[in-house]
Amino acid sequence: MIKSETQGFIELIKIASIYLVFTSLYACSVLYLEERYGDALYSVPGQIGSVFGLAVAFFLGFRMNSAYDRWWEARKIFGELTNNTRSFVGKCGIYVPSIDSKRDATVACKQLVDLAIAYVRQLKSEMHEVQHPELDEHTKKLFGDNRVDVQNKLTNEILLALAVKVEQTFQSSNAIEKYDLMQHVGRFFDIQGKAERINNTPFLHIYGAFTRIIVISYVILMPFFIGDIDPGGEDSMLELLAIPILVLISTAFLTINRLANLLGEPLSEHRTSVAIDVICQTIVQDSEQFKVKFQPKSESAANEVG
Amino acid sequence: MIKSETQGFIELIKIASIYLVFTSLYACSVLYLEERYGDALYSVPGQIGSVFGLAVAFFLGFRMNSAYDRWWEARKIFGELTNNTRSFVGKCGIYVPSIDSKRDATVACKQLVDLAIAYVRQLKSEMHEVQHPELDEHTKKLFGDNRVDVQNKLTNEILLALAVKVEQTFQSSNAIEKYDLMQHVGRFFDIQGKAERINNTPFLHIYGAFTRIIVISYVILMPFFIGDIDPGGEDSMLELLAIPILVLISTAFLTINRLANLLGEPLSEHRTSVAIDVICQTIVQDSEQFKVKFQPKSESAANEVG
Amino acid sequence: MIKSETQGFIELIKIASIYLVFTSLYACSVLYLEERYGDALYSVPGQIGSVFGLAVAFFLGFRMNSAYDRWWEARKIFGELTNNTRSFVGKCGIYVPSIDSKRDATVACKQLVDLAIAYVRQLKSEMHEVQHPELDEHTKKLFGDNRVDVQNKLTNEILLALAVKVEQTFQSSNAIEKYDLMQHVGRFFDIQGKAERINNTPFLHIYGAFTRIIVISYVILMPFFIGDIDPGGEDSMLELLAIPILVLISTAFLTINRLANLLGEPLSEHRTSVAIDVICQTIVQDSEQFKVKFQPKSESAANEVG
Amino acid sequence: MIKSETQGFIELIKIASIYLVFTSLYACSVLYLEERYGDALYSVPGQIGSVFGLAVAFFLGFRMNSAYDRWWEARKIFGELTNNTRSFVGKCGIYVPSIDSKRDATVACKQLVDLAIAYVRQLKSEMHEVQHPELDEHTKKLFGDNRVDVQNKLTNEILLALAVKVEQTFQSSNAIEKYDLMQHVGRFFDIQGKAERINNTPFLHIYGAFTRIIVISYVILMPFFIGDIDPGGEDSMLELLAIPILVLISTAFLTINRLANLLGEPLSEHRTSVAIDVICQTIVQDSEQFKVKFQPKSESAANEVG
Amino acid sequence: MIKSETQGFIELIKIASIYLVFTSLYACSVLYLEERYGDALYSVPGQIGSVFGLAVAFFLGFRMNSAYDRWWEARKIFGELTNNTRSFVGKCGIYVPSIDSKRDATVACKQLVDLAIAYVRQLKSEMHEVQHPELDEHTKKLFGDNRVDVQNKLTNEILLALAVKVEQTFQSSNAIEKYDLMQHVGRFFDIQGKAERINNTPFLHIYGAFTRIIVISYVILMPFFIGDIDPGGEDSMLELLAIPILVLISTAFLTINRLANLLGEPLSEHRTSVAIDVICQTIVQDSEQFKVKFQPKSESAANEVG
Repeated sequence: MIKSETQGFIELIKIASIYLVFTSLYACSVLYLEERYGDALYSVPGQIGSVFGLAVAFFLGFRMNSAYDRWWEARKIFGELTNNTRSFVGKCGIYVPSIDSKRDATVACKQLVDLAIAYVRQLKSEMHEVQHPELDEHTKKLFGDNRVDVQNKLTNEILLALAVKVEQTFQSSNAIEKYDLMQHVGRFFDIQGKAERINNTPFLHIYGAFTRIIVISYVILMPFFIGDIDPGGEDSMLELLAIPILVLISTAFLTINRLANLLGEPLSEHRTSVAIDVICQTIVQDSEQFKVKFQPKSESAANEVG
Repeated sequence: MIKSETQGFIELIKIASIYLVFTSLYACSVLYLEERYGDALYSVPGQIGSVFGLAVAFFLGFRMNSAYDRWWEARKIFGELTNNTRSFVGKCGIYVPSIDSKRDATVACKQLVDLAIAYVRQLKSEMHEVQHPELDEHTKKLFGDNRVDVQNKLTNEILLALAVKVEQTFQSSNAIEKYDLMQHVGRFFDIQGKAERINNTPFLHIYGAFTRIIVISYVILMPFFIGDIDPGGEDSMLELLAIPILVLISTAFLTINRLANLLGEPLSEHRTSVAIDVICQTIVQDSEQFKVKFQPKSESAANEVG
Repeated sequence: MIKSETQGFIELIKIASIYLVFTSLYACSVLYLEERYGDALYSVPGQIGSVFGLAVAFFLGFRMNSAYDRWWEARKIFGELTNNTRSFVGKCGIYVPSIDSKRDATVACKQLVDLAIAYVRQLKSEMHEVQHPELDEHTKKLFGDNRVDVQNKLTNEILLALAVKVEQTFQSSNAIEKYDLMQHVGRFFDIQGKAERINNTPFLHIYGAFTRIIVISYVILMPFFIGDIDPGGEDSMLELLAIPILVLISTAFLTINRLANLLGEPLSEHRTSVAIDVICQTIVQDSEQFKVKFQPKSESAANEVG
Repeated sequence: MIKSETQGFIELIKIASIYLVFTSLYACSVLYLEERYGDALYSVPGQIGSVFGLAVAFFLGFRMNSAYDRWWEARKIFGELTNNTRSFVGKCGIYVPSIDSKRDATVACKQLVDLAIAYVRQLKSEMHEVQHPELDEHTKKLFGDNRVDVQNKLTNEILLALAVKVEQTFQSSNAIEKYDLMQHVGRFFDIQGKAERINNTPFLHIYGAFTRIIVISYVILMPFFIGDIDPGGEDSMLELLAIPILVLISTAFLTINRLANLLGEPLSEHRTSVAIDVICQTIVQDSEQFKVKFQPKSESAANEVG
Repeated sequence: MIKSETQGFIELIKIASIYLVFTSLYACSVLYLEERYGDALYSVPGQIGSVFGLAVAFFLGFRMNSAYDRWWEARKIFGELTNNTRSFVGKCGIYVPSIDSKRDATVACKQLVDLAIAYVRQLKSEMHEVQHPELDEHTKKLFGDNRVDVQNKLTNEILLALAVKVEQTFQSSNAIEKYDLMQHVGRFFDIQGKAERINNTPFLHIYGAFTRIIVISYVILMPFFIGDIDPGGEDSMLELLAIPILVLISTAFLTINRLANLLGEPLSEHRTSVAIDVICQTIVQDSEQFKVKFQPKSESAANEVG
């Protein structure tokens, strides 16, 4: 995630520099040809170039807008994951002890929290297309205890195990706590489905191809739209001013198209994507902290001393 | 569904090529006439063409935006179908066994999952305007057992059967599990209604006709707006540059109009539509996997061995 | 509702033809005057006309966008009515029989469904400003049985009767089914309120008047912005090209303004409004079909035979 | 509220007339100066004026859009107030009698409805910045009976009294009806909070100041952008055409800015604001009608006769 | 928070004045150079400047729009905090006394309200990046009584303590009130998560850097786009008109970019940010008022006398 505007500048330059180079080369070549073969080359009437350029700017503006909405939607989904996990873990720690016998409650509660943590980790992995990440011993045991079939889609399996655990823990007691926790499990399913939707449905490649083609076309044609910029006569060098202008506009258009494409894939692992690693780490951390609190007094005290 | 940008390019070219051909022919004809009858033909002042062109671009930009929103809304609805089915099937497998006798529970649970699967399949069929698809033996028996009247609108009938099954299974037991599952049935009704809304309400044909007419008019008039592009004098061939420019802008406008029309019908079976076949297949697959898990230990073990 | 693009074209032509005629007459008159009194008439600099024209296009684009959102919101509300009625009727048929004695249940269930149907019909009537439509004998009896006061606002009365019926039917039994159905009654109140909001709050007449005035002003001034379009000299007829261009742009602007006004009243009974008659008919049909199913076996069987 | 387009025109003219007068005076003055001191005055190149004018139009378009969204959001909030009050009052009339003894129920139910009505009235007052309106005898007694402290923020106090009343009425009985009504109380809190949010958070005065300054600047500079409009030579009067054009565009820009500012304050008491007085009156009327229905049969019958 | 339009003007001038100064200096320098070295300097064709300027205006318009949406979203979140706290505190005061013994209830209820107040205060602190603010004696005792670990993230800890308190208070009684209050705790978690999401996810620094660069580039290049503005000949001073125009447009573009950046950080402590201090103070005040009401009659009476 880009934290400061300075970082933003650096990343922007990384993205834009390639365009800077190419458009500079192109603008120089066209100017050289114009110098060599006379002014006649530059003469498509500006008006049609103006329509084209502004149409491209419109379409880019709208596309950037949709891309940003998509990016923000992805961010919201992982924000919801944070909220839901916090609520769920908190409620587990509160509902479970008041129901079961002391010892069992601690175990059940710990397992529920561990499953929630494992779920968050696995969801993150699947977003990065790692369906079956390496598991540590602790997780392997947890999955074994809860009949999680590691061959299947793991997120589904863990959520199922979570639901089974909730059902078993509250089986003999008042239903309303169970219902409350089951709502959270349902929300986990919703969050996962939404994240998968954004991850698996590309941001309209056909429209992306369209904007790319028209942006590149405009950049190529721009020198012909610009007309004669040779004010000081053939011997002055003022026409060189055309180069920075052409380069600037070309780079701006190409960069915004690239930015829209990057924002349109908010769950990939590139520079502008949503920082799901950081978010998931925070969730896990918060959950671990909650877990410590839920340990029976004696352990907890020991823990605080440690 | 278009998975990569390369595919996007290919599909785009399929859509745009017809426009490329026609606009090339048109641009060449006008240029030929201009050559033959003198420059006088090209002379509507550019300013009014500029207003017209930008107005067209603006309306197209907004329309594309609405079309994309519509497409994304359709995608969200089927994402919700995924989430709701997963939650429902998962909860069936967890709630049912803890209530009924072992044997009956397995049967009831299996039937609930089968009905959910049949529902997803039928919804997909109805989206493709197939109201009464061929049923396999298994489904026929399922429908017979649950009093599904195959003469009526099938999605409604299956949901009703699902609700009846839920009611019967939990009749004698705690109401909160039944209420929870009934909420999911209600969500199925909502999802179906939303999908039918998008499928049956066309994307404003009257506005579609309007944009088509103004885009075509602009394309036809563009050569007259472009003015005289004959810089090198009558004997140079530089005016040929007008052809690619005209063709490019015309094709871009016609293509974006076509793209908006395609995106505005997100549940049809064309290249840019939402991949409901793939989505429904994934749902069915996930549900089948869940079903296997819910079989009593012995069967399940056998299954895992197999 | 307009079902195909061809119908869309026809409707569009109906709307646009009046503008076509008037703008043609106007453009011809101005051209005639210009011919008679010399070129001097056409000379406001194009630049200010360009700003005006594009500003108008912007404002129209935004207004069209808001109008479409409003139209789609209205469509969603009636989609929700479909979903809620289906769920409600389905749940009535399932919850009621499992609670009461067989005979009473059938009667209660039938009355609940009939009230829901009467509600949908009445809501449709009120949308078309018919507060007290003619009632058939069946409905009159239904209203009499359920203390519906036909003098008052009927939708409110029917919903109240529905809620009373739900309360009475489930009085002695488990509360959760009653709560579930009451939620649906609450949703009916919400849907009705939303539909009334759209129907009673006009789409900002003051802004409508504003766009109308600026569009008409632009159309009137356009010939003066277009400048001299007389390329072939006074004796050629090429300036006639100005007429179709003026007519086209004028008609496009006037038509889009009209379309925005029509879409802004989505619940009226004109060509582009939401097809609430068709939607309500479908709801009634689905509900009737459900009702047949809920009859006790014997009747139902008889029915199927018939 | 403006009910017809004719009213819209009248209100629009009220708003726009002041701008019409001032811009006419200004345009005439500039034209007079130009006549007196020669054409040289009019000569800033049009292109930069075009960029400025369109940028202003664009920013105004976006601002108008946001203002309309804000207005519609306010309208939705009061629509929700309608729906929630109707549901709440309806449910009170249905739940209360089935629980308590006949006599007490009627009293309790009446008080609940009266409190709801008082709440709607008070919310309306607070929106118009009247924190402590004059109370009639009936309301004073109601507030005294329910421990409403008229010194404090009254809406909060009434909602609290409403919640206490619900709690007391259902204390000894099944909790689900109480929970249902409490949800409605919660929704009242939400609606109030949303209405206060719109009412207390101004529509970005800093941005309002910004658009006002740039609009006024553009209007002042427009004559200098328009260039020489003196086609018929110094002796013709054709340049007078510049005046209506300048006046029209200036007035349009100033009016749309004013409209955006008015719509951005949707809960004030001016011509374009949301008609909360009418809405609240309808709510009160509906609630009173419901109350009559809830009276025990004898009274109600008497009432119908009267 | 900016309360009146006059304040808005003042704040706007504070923001814009720096740009006014710099752009004035720049415009004067360029004009001086042009005077000294002849008109030849001003000659990039206007058309390309027009495309660039309008593209910049578009992108700024869209960015301003997104920034405003972000600002409004932040405002909504704190509005929700208001609503949720009011509901929660109100319900605490109503549910608790009807369950427990008089004395304990008052204590429990007071502690719940105090914890809610402490939560609101802490959330505000964390938004301003003060993780561990100074606590007064009262709060310290409150945290000690409720096992709030001041080393950890305090908002999480307080919410957990709140949930534990709810659980303990209602342990032995009917579950539905507990469930209702727990829903509110869940909403607190959601609100906090949403506020943290806006606070921690910067408003796309890379896009901010992009718009800043293109705005500055356009401002630098504008004098070259403007062409020759020397209508009265070399000896007249009319070309000085160019300076205010350049300054105005430059300042407008730079200011709107700055405004978008400010609105994009709605939870910082600058002039245009959401007034969370005021909002939180109002919440605390309302809650304190509610707390007074919940004291048993005798204390409350004493309090009113005092």
